[in-house]
Amino acid sequence: MSDGVPDTMRFAEAESDPSIPKDDAKALVSELRAALLKAQYARLEKADRSLLIIVAGIDGAGKGGTVNLINEWMDARHIRTMAFGPPSNEERQYPFLWRYWRRLPAKGRTGIVFGSWYGPLFGALARKNPKRGEVERLASSICDFETLLTRDGVQVLKLWYHLSRGAQKKRTSELLSDPETSWMVRPEDRLVAQNFKRVRQAAGTMLTLTDSAAAPWHVIPSADDRMRAIATGHAILAALREPAAGARPPAGAAAWRSPAAAAPNDGGVRQRRLARVDYSASLAENEYDDQLAHLRGRLAHQVRGKAFGKLPVVLVFEGHDAAGKGSTIRRITHALDARQFRAVPIGSPSPEEHARPYLWRFWRELPAPGELTIFDRSWYGRVLVERVEGYARPHEWRRAYDEINQFERQLTESGMLVLKFWLAITKDVQLERFRERERSPFKSFKITPEDWRNREKWASYTVAANDMFDLTDTTCAPWHVVSSNDKRHARVSVLEKIVTAIDARLPQ
Amino acid sequence: MSDGVPDTMRFAEAESDPSIPKDDAKALVSELRAALLKAQYARLEKADRSLLIIVAGIDGAGKGGTVNLINEWMDARHIRTMAFGPPSNEERQYPFLWRYWRRLPAKGRTGIVFGSWYGPLFGALARKNPKRGEVERLASSICDFETLLTRDGVQVLKLWYHLSRGAQKKRTSELLSDPETSWMVRPEDRLVAQNFKRVRQAAGTMLTLTDSAAAPWHVIPSADDRMRAIATGHAILAALREPAAGARPPAGAAAWRSPAAAAPNDGGVRQRRLARVDYSASLAENEYDDQLAHLRGRLAHQVRGKAFGKLPVVLVFEGHDAAGKGSTIRRITHALDARQFRAVPIGSPSPEEHARPYLWRFWRELPAPGELTIFDRSWYGRVLVERVEGYARPHEWRRAYDEINQFERQLTESGMLVLKFWLAITKDVQLERFRERERSPFKSFKITPEDWRNREKWASYTVAANDMFDLTDTTCAPWHVVSSNDKRHARVSVLEKIVTAIDARLPQ
Repeated sequence: MSDGVPDTMRFAEAESDPSIPKDDAKALVSELRAALLKAQYARLEKADRSLLIIVAGIDGAGKGGTVNLINEWMDARHIRTMAFGPPSNEERQYPFLWRYWRRLPAKGRTGIVFGSWYGPLFGALARKNPKRGEVERLASSICDFETLLTRDGVQVLKLWYHLSRGAQKKRTSELLSDPETSWMVRPEDRLVAQNFKRVRQAAGTMLTLTDSAAAPWHVIPSADDRMRAIATGHAILAALREPAAGARPPAGAAAWRSPAAAAPNDGGVRQRRLARVDYSASLAENEYDDQLAHLRGRLAHQVRGKAFGKLPVVLVFEGHDAAGKGSTIRRITHALDARQFRAVPIGSPSPEEHARPYLWRFWRELPAPGELTIFDRSWYGRVLVERVEGYARPHEWRRAYDEINQFERQLTESGMLVLKFWLAITKDVQLERFRERERSPFKSFKITPEDWRNREKWASYTVAANDMFDLTDTTCAPWHVVSSNDKRHARVSVLEKIVTAIDARLPQ
Repeated sequence: MSDGVPDTMRFAEAESDPSIPKDDAKALVSELRAALLKAQYARLEKADRSLLIIVAGIDGAGKGGTVNLINEWMDARHIRTMAFGPPSNEERQYPFLWRYWRRLPAKGRTGIVFGSWYGPLFGALARKNPKRGEVERLASSICDFETLLTRDGVQVLKLWYHLSRGAQKKRTSELLSDPETSWMVRPEDRLVAQNFKRVRQAAGTMLTLTDSAAAPWHVIPSADDRMRAIATGHAILAALREPAAGARPPAGAAAWRSPAAAAPNDGGVRQRRLARVDYSASLAENEYDDQLAHLRGRLAHQVRGKAFGKLPVVLVFEGHDAAGKGSTIRRITHALDARQFRAVPIGSPSPEEHARPYLWRFWRELPAPGELTIFDRSWYGRVLVERVEGYARPHEWRRAYDEINQFERQLTESGMLVLKFWLAITKDVQLERFRERERSPFKSFKITPEDWRNREKWASYTVAANDMFDLTDTTCAPWHVVSSNDKRHARVSVLEKIVTAIDARLPQ
């Protein structure tokens, strides 16, 4: 595509159908197996990254047999081979990366993926007249996804199995001619020869569009069984041996500037978001009772309607400790049928969650159409508590703004309604509520030494929150900052925004 | 049902619609909340059992609101409220308890279940002419399930919300009369008054059939909001405070006798299973190649057929270390499409698995129709390694034989094909293979000091295996003991048994 060099140039070597003589192979394989095992164990012990191997290529190139062999060469107990066919009805209800997110291997382990996220892109490219917009959209979401994975502890190795048209045809007919191997040939394998030129061109473009230093493509010459197996083994060995990126200074880490610093010095006229909240907003008790009952009734009516059955809803609640997240959430869930919502409190990650990219746990809790997931704290922990407390390193939380925007865009593009609420309180109100909690026999569990420690970092949390609003208040998933110094005001405002937003998404 | 006392007697108190005056309630609630929190935290800290609360009862009795309140009274972060509607298409493909197994809370935590496993039984009983066989079958599988849960760290508390016909009718019409609460009334709530007598009778019978000391029913008087909430709180508090059963000597523990001891002393004529294996069985290489290719071809053909799409298959592999489980499994998977099988190696449980009944991890891996799950070691670990090494206490592994038989019966009753293989080798062959592994650079990872330690306990493992065959070789899921001193013989025998068993299940 670039420099006038055709994308298919990368297949030149593979299409020369190189082979390895039997006698040479034996020594090579023996050495390779020992090295692969050693490297696999070293990775398991370190457990700093997982390895995800994408298996793709020309149909009938012998991918399945090679993966079987790899499982034999390495310690198969720590490898998970995953095959994805056409998405199921359930999977279709979610963003297309959902099913891959759910099955990411834990750090130290290896996953092998058949039927990866390249399916739709390859399909789009192999059409007679590929649509440029679709191709670009798919390629860019793949790049975003792989960048996120590689930065967050998942190493991605992509293998493209390739051979010449003649060799593919020969391999297929040899297998077909023997009744005991004919089952190895799938219907699509027979079609390759007919469409070889187009398949090859589509593959070339795809590899060019999605090749990156972090997640490179390797073309595996596949005409010869021994060549194919050994080339695969070598590619995996090199990947296993590659030092973790953490050792190198992350690229572009210096580029981040706090939005606060970036704002013009205007003598305090343009205040940051949390300073602009009207903390005096309040609601009298009788007004509150009326409005709450009315809004709840509307919400209850909405979610019981037939049209709601097609809408997945994500509600996110963030705010300083004691801002009233829990009690506001309960006012919402009261109007819902217990079968259709899930309230997910987010605390520190479990060992299982810790062994995977930080967004993994949230992908697991996404709602199906007709369901609501309510996150009591969320993925924003990455740029709030993890930033302030130093649990994430600066280059990790700085890139998280982009990652979060991409994540939310994927949700909204797949049809989810995403509503984010920040319940805003002032420092004195927090103190009041902390004291009240300490006095109350059944609220004292809500107040711990950690809460007091967090309070000391009030200013840092406020800066982090303001940066977050500046960088993640997107059109598809805007932030709603609601004063919660008066809890009645907060509850009614939140409910009103939810009801209005759902209304806008349901057919009238 | 028994003693001529009607089952519905247990509803007498609830149908008197007792209430608690507002002034009394305040003090009661305040005390109750503090006690509930304290008890909840004590359980979290101990983390020796989880609590599963089953919420059931007359429609329109106010269950939903009460559960909301409990979430408010306790620390909701450690409670998971789960609501199950009619089973989804996916859920229908599995045994009916599958969806409940998958969502068991971890030790220390509390789960609240709406739409529990009582749905089918209640439905069967509420019919005009209940079918006795169906009722008995459902009741007995519920009892088995709850017994297993309570014995294995899941405490089960069952709440039946009840009120008089008049109070139910009154409650429903009051809610309906106000447009802001009318949504709280579901269509089924309005039907209760019409069928009250039959509903009441069905409930009475159900409670009698499934009441047990380990998982007792509590009837919650529900006409009055305060009464309902406080009675619920008290029932939960009592459950949280109940000491763990582990402290008491397990009932019936003394009843178990080893099948070896139970066998008549016949002077060694009737040998135990592993002594009866013909270890000399072997296969020449050329014969092996032919038969393997032929059987693989048949298997490949079977699993690619349309009819296979309705059959879920579970393959279990057990045997002494170095019996050749891994290599046999690979001979099978070679014939399969990677999309339709999962090979699951079973090692020591993860912390997540350890916090739940031992069968939990296996429920999570069951195949859907058209899929195979291949377990490389399995739930039989409970009566093999856990017994021999003392990881399970005697009363735990002794009752496991029954639990395993029940588990496998549930699988086969739901239509799964379950095949269990023991690859049998002699002690000298194991030694040979251990030595060979030590010498081979790419097999040395397969041999650890633990393997040598296990070898020292060869005799204990053999006794455990023989007991296992005696107690779990059932008609629905028989054991196939295959000599594996000659690996070629083992591989071909196993493949043959699989092919034959699948053939028998596919329409001809």
